[in-house]
Formats: sequence, C-alpha cells, structure tokens
Amino acid sequence: MPYMPQDSEKNPDIQHLLEQAQQQGDDASVQMLLDAYHPSDIADALEAMPRELRVQLWQNIEADKKGEILTEVHGEVREQLINSSSEKELVDALAGLQPDELADIDEKLPDSVVDKMLAGMDATQKFRYESVRRYPDDTAGGLMDIDAVTISPDDTLLNVLNEIRELRKREGAVPEHLESVMVVDAQNYYLGALRLSDAVSLSPKSRVGDVMDTGVPAIEVMTPANKVAQLFENLDLISAPVVNEVGQLLGRITVDDVIDVIRGQSEHTIMSQAGLNRDMDMFAPLMQSAFRRNVWLSANLVNAFIAAYVIDLFSASIQQIVALAVLMPVIASMGGVAGNQSLALVTRGLALDQVKSSNARRLLLRETALGMINGLFWASVVTLVIIYWFDNLSLGLVFAVALIINLLTAALAGTLVPLVLNKAGIDPALAGGVLLMAVTDVVGFSAFLGLATLILL
Amino acid sequence: MPYMPQDSEKNPDIQHLLEQAQQQGDDASVQMLLDAYHPSDIADALEAMPRELRVQLWQNIEADKKGEILTEVHGEVREQLINSSSEKELVDALAGLQPDELADIDEKLPDSVVDKMLAGMDATQKFRYESVRRYPDDTAGGLMDIDAVTISPDDTLLNVLNEIRELRKREGAVPEHLESVMVVDAQNYYLGALRLSDAVSLSPKSRVGDVMDTGVPAIEVMTPANKVAQLFENLDLISAPVVNEVGQLLGRITVDDVIDVIRGQSEHTIMSQAGLNRDMDMFAPLMQSAFRRNVWLSANLVNAFIAAYVIDLFSASIQQIVALAVLMPVIASMGGVAGNQSLALVTRGLALDQVKSSNARRLLLRETALGMINGLFWASVVTLVIIYWFDNLSLGLVFAVALIINLLTAALAGTLVPLVLNKAGIDPALAGGVLLMAVTDVVGFSAFLGLATLILL
Repeated sequence: MPYMPQDSEKNPDIQHLLEQAQQQGDDASVQMLLDAYHPSDIADALEAMPRELRVQLWQNIEADKKGEILTEVHGEVREQLINSSSEKELVDALAGLQPDELADIDEKLPDSVVDKMLAGMDATQKFRYESVRRYPDDTAGGLMDIDAVTISPDDTLLNVLNEIRELRKREGAVPEHLESVMVVDAQNYYLGALRLSDAVSLSPKSRVGDVMDTGVPAIEVMTPANKVAQLFENLDLISAPVVNEVGQLLGRITVDDVIDVIRGQSEHTIMSQAGLNRDMDMFAPLMQSAFRRNVWLSANLVNAFIAAYVIDLFSASIQQIVALAVLMPVIASMGGVAGNQSLALVTRGLALDQVKSSNARRLLLRETALGMINGLFWASVVTLVIIYWFDNLSLGLVFAVALIINLLTAALAGTLVPLVLNKAGIDPALAGGVLLMAVTDVVGFSAFLGLATLILL
Repeated sequence: MPYMPQDSEKNPDIQHLLEQAQQQGDDASVQMLLDAYHPSDIADALEAMPRELRVQLWQNIEADKKGEILTEVHGEVREQLINSSSEKELVDALAGLQPDELADIDEKLPDSVVDKMLAGMDATQKFRYESVRRYPDDTAGGLMDIDAVTISPDDTLLNVLNEIRELRKREGAVPEHLESVMVVDAQNYYLGALRLSDAVSLSPKSRVGDVMDTGVPAIEVMTPANKVAQLFENLDLISAPVVNEVGQLLGRITVDDVIDVIRGQSEHTIMSQAGLNRDMDMFAPLMQSAFRRNVWLSANLVNAFIAAYVIDLFSASIQQIVALAVLMPVIASMGGVAGNQSLALVTRGLALDQVKSSNARRLLLRETALGMINGLFWASVVTLVIIYWFDNLSLGLVFAVALIINLLTAALAGTLVPLVLNKAGIDPALAGGVLLMAVTDVVGFSAFLGLATLILL
C-alpha cells in the first residue's frame, strides 16, 4: 500500500487504532494496520504505548519488520523489546538488517544472538560490521557506512556507469542513497566525489579526474558527530567521505544518519535541562522512573537547603520586618530568569561554535552591561511598587540595590557557568541551570537580607 | 582552495583571524581568509562579531559570496547587512541566487531591489520565484524548489538519461541534489520517483513505470514544515515531491532544506524557554536587547508578585514562626523542578507526535503517580532534616504534607499545561515554564503557610 499524502490534521492516530483493535481481539485489523504503516510509524506507536500493550503488539509484528523497528526506537524501549523476544525471534528479526545497522544496536543484544548473526555473515559483511564497531557511536567512524563505491580519476564516465551496472548485477542492488561515487587513487587516497547527476549528464568520454567535485570535504574518522552535522548543514551535503588520519578512504556518511544526530542533539538538550535522559521510555516502570527523577530532585534539594541556610542566618531580621520574607521570591526569581537568558544565549552560541575564547570576553561585557541596564530599570519599577505596597522608602531602596546586585550576578553567572562547564567538558545543558540557580538564589537572598540587616535595623 | 579534513580540536577560529587581520589593516590577509572559507563559515563568523566589525568586514566581501552569506545568516544579522548595503551592492550580491533562495530572504529587502531583481528574471525564473512566495515559509510549499525534473512512466531508462543530458546542454547545469526524477502522467499527476542510481544500473530498455519507486510519499503543499521534517526523518528521504490537493506535482523538497527546519525547531525551543527569539543577533544594539529581555522579565515579575502576595497573606504566621520563611524556597523549588520534568517529557512527546488525546489521560495518571511516590519519599527525607534542624516535629509534618501537595500539583500542572497550550495553538516551549512556575509557587506557598497557620498557631 503506498503512502498517502500527508495531512497533519487528519493524521490518523495509529497507536490508538492499534490499541483499540488489540483490545477488541481483532487480530485481522491489527495485522492490516501493521501492514499499512512504515516501520518508523510503528516504532513511534510502540514508544507511545504502555509497556504491557507494547509487548503484546510486538508479538504480532512480522519478523522482517521487527529488525527495522528495533533500529528506530529509543534506547530503553529497544531494550524492553529485545528482552521480551526469544533468541530465535531476534535472529529472525535481525536477519534483514545491514551489518552497520546491526552494529548500531548490538549493545543490548544477548551475546548468543550476536554470535549467531556473525556466524551468518560472509567476510565482507563481517568486515563492515567490525569497521563500524571499531569507532565510538558519536564519531564520524561510528556514523559511517563502508559501502562507498570507488572509482579511479583516470576512468571515463562511461566506465563509471558500466561499473555501477556491474555492481548491481553482482550484488543485486546498489547502496542506499547512492548520489555520488568516491574518487580515490591507487593507494586509496580520497581525491574527490563524482555526482551521479554529472556522470549521466556530461559527455561519456570525460575523464573522472576532470569533472569530479573537489569541494566535498573528507571527514577524519574520529571527528565528533556534532562537527559532522555542522559540516553537512553548512555545505548542504547528501553524503561525504570518511578518511583515516592520512586521507585514505574508509567509508561514507549519508545525510539520513546526520539528521538523526541533529534530532538527537536537540532532544538531548531539551531533556537534559530537566535532568532527564533522551533514551528514556515515556512509560518506564514506575519505581525506576521515580528513582531517576529523584537524582535530579536531590541535586536541587541541596541547592534549596543552601538557600534556606542563608535565609536562616537572617531570621532575626525577618522576624522584625516580615516584608523581607514576602519579597524574597521576587528577588530570587528575577535573578533566575535573567540568568537563564544569558545561559540560553551562550549555550546556543557554544553549540553553534560561535562563542569562542576570542569573543567570550566581549560577550561577558555585553551581558553584564545588559544586567546593569535591566537592573536599574527593574529596580526603579519594583521600588515604586514596594514603596506603595509597604509604605517604606528605605525598604524599597534596599530592595533596589539588592536587585541590581542580583541581576549583575545573574548576567555574570549566566555567561560564565556555560563557558566554564564547556571548558571542563561538562554539558552546559545538563548542569548549567542548577548551578546558575544556586548562585542567583544565594547572592539574591544574601544581598537583600544582608543589606536590610545593615541598613534597616 | 579545497576544504581541509575537519578536525574540531584544530578548527581555526575564523572569526578571530578575520578580526585580527582587519584590526591590523592587513587587507591582503582578510581577502585570503575570505577566499579560503565557504560562505557558510563566513556567515558564522559574521554572526559571532560585534556589529561595527561585522559591517566593516561585509564591505570587504566579494559580491558573488554576499548573496549566499545573506541566505545563511539569522534574521536580524541579515537585516543589519542588508541595511548597510547600497541598492547597487544588493543587486550585485543577489544576482547569483536562485529565484527560490531570493524568495526566502526578500522580506527585508528594499522594494526597489526586489523590483530590479524581478526585472532581470526570465519568465521561468519569475514563475519559480512566485511559486515559492505563494506559500507560507513554514509549509511544504514554502520549502519547495520547482526545479523537479519530470518524466513519463512510458519512457525507457535510456530516454531518461538522454533527457537529462539534453537538460544539461540546454540549461548549462542540472538541478542541485538531483538524485531522483519525478514520474508524472500526462495530466501532471505524481506517480512515483525514479532514482538516478536505478536509472544507471538497470537495463536501459526498462520502462520507467515498471522500475520507479512508489514508496516516496507525495507531500501536500500546505503540510506544515515540521510534518515534512518528520516524514524525511522517518523514511530517510533525500528528496520528495510536493503536490497540490488533487495530487498534481508542484515541485520537490530536498533534504538540505529539511535539515534547516530541524535545526531551526531545536534552536527555537531552546531560545523560547528563556523568552528569546532564535532570529536574534547575539550582538544586537544594547538598548534593543534590554527592551526585549524585559518583556520576559516582566511576565515573570507578575508571577513573582503573585507569589509575594500569597506570602503576605500569612505574614503574621511568619512573624511567629520564622522557620516558615526559611523553608519557603525549598518547597517552591522542589515543585518547580519536579513540574519541569513532567513539562519536558510531555513537550517532547508532543513534538514527536507521540502524545495524543488517546494516551494523554494515561500519561497524566502516570505522572501523578510519580508525583505521589516522589512526594512521599521527599516528604520523609525533608521532614527528618527539619526535625533535626528546628527540633520541631509538627513543623516537619506540616512541611511533609505541603510538599506532597505541591509535588502532586507540579505533576498535574507539568502535564496539563503543555497539553492545554498545545491545544490552544500556543507553543508550550515559550509559555509552559512561566505558567508552571506560577502554579507551583502559589500552590506551594499557600499549602505550606496555610497549613502552618491552621495547625501550628
């Protein structure tokens, strides 16, 4: 069944349809739905289901779809599906995968299954599997396929087209996303890429070396995945060669894997900010979820108790002027919000590689200046509110000074925290918010309550 | 100069090098650097520079690179560069752009420049320009190019290759990223796609209709950009046809534009959470930045004053038991953090289209259960700390009950707020955090101070 034109408004809720059919014991409908949709849609539906229903549905899926589904689901859901399958089911499911796809998901597979899969591979497939396994997942090597088609610069375009035809006869298929072939010399050094669209549209007698594209950069095999993504984005690449440290061709990266990297980064950032993991199952076992979230809650609790301790130092002052307690959340939240703005800006700049040591100082100055301007502005506004509310000029002035101090601190901390974390190799998205909040809370409360104690009492 | 193998550690800081050369008046080095790097690298460097240096550098860039740079920079930086160029400079810079690239950036261009550009276009180019302009930027129509190469199902592969060769002779080039051609019938209805890799590797006598790929879905022209991105991701597409409501081919979308959509969504989410705009210039004029950030700060200030008002209702209680003031930040921050976890989870689920009305209720129950479990756990821990710290059992128990109430509220609000905002067509990433915080602050303070007033006094 072909895919229908996509219309978001009428997008059927496959997960809901599947679940309904399953609960009514309507196996025919379940099967029809499973047949009608792409494995990636079924993967989405599985992720959106509670664990018991997920396993039930999994049993109904045909072996040849299961393999692709396993490559599509997030880490924990994958683990659950693997654990609920027998060894034989897994071997059948994985039979249709490419060696490099297998290498991407084999971490959670039982050793016995991996052994069986390896036993079934020929030498070329085993080589492909091992080549990908050799490099960490988040490097160019971990992303590459080793199915690059290579040609010599001295071939003619006619030769090239014949070679591709031969390849198809020999292998029964051409590699996926084959939009260019790689040009290498006799020692396998990468020289350039020949686009298929050029190969078919230029004179068949042209020499490859004369018409190849030398603007497609060779990516060193240990290049981090996020740099690879940046390169694809900046140069609008569809595929790019991966080379070893001296420039010999090892494989190629295609844009579909790069999209997964970009989406993964984005999810990682959004989930990390709340102390969550992007591989997490939305319907993980309850106690397991509770435990994981508590790790983050406990880090924040330490923060909160430090703030409480600071407040306790001034409890005598609060007892005398209870308005101090009333205004505490105002000073803390203004600092937190302003600091978060600097934090978001610098974190994005770091991710885009636009914030570097050469302009960090300039950015710090700028954010501090903004903190000062906003501090002065809000100090005036809030002071007027306080004078009107509590009929107390000195309290308003104390608050104003404390607010300026806290907004300046927030700007400094919001800029410095991600810079320092990044230098230390810690992800600013994960730890930045907690650290920043600790700083703005402590400084905000100390400045306000301290000044009040000195001046108002 | 070809691109060097990419090594992040040694990635030269182009922006810094350019700036140095510029400040030393070393025009030769500036020119060499500008020549050596890709327009997208130069665009990155321009974005990372303060505004004065940016304009200075802009003057030194050759006209033919300026056009591509303008398409690469973010909205506000683009605006600055446009405003600092004369009409003639702009016309020269834009001359090298494709009509659809021009349509993407023409919003900020002076009308006189757009008129001149249009006057220089032939009928086909004008048609391409108008076709893209007709649809909103964030739809399939806004993303599409209308340079699709079309063939008939009754052609042979040999015909197809000849047609592509003819096309190149006629136009001087083939469309970018031409990895497949679109198969349409006599009425221009989309039937399928023929991959170039199939066209060159199968028998030249094969009929297109027999070997075309019918699995590439036709995308309706008004489909939102994020749905398009999802489709490309799920099906690992390189290009896809765009059709009108009855299925006639209008153009095609290529993966490089989809990558920009995905990266844009991610940046949008991260910046929105802090009330910032992703089109923002990192070095925008100071007063302009200050003003924009204040919009967000003022929304939060209203929140903070509501919280302050709640506290003020209980000022008599705080005066009697100052420990209440000390513990306030603990209850508020625990609620905020726990609520943010639910918020992040649901916001991601909505973005991935995995949270729908059919499983929203289940998710709400689950989050509430987690809130209850974590509430009970932390209530026990914190109560012990409080009893030890303040030597006051009743205070500990009051805090425990208030914390359970606030963590339950946080779970409910963290789940419901993004669901409701999404239904109302408001971006949960932008408004979710502020609303959630308002709820957890007000409920946290009321529960704690209210219970304390009832029970402890």
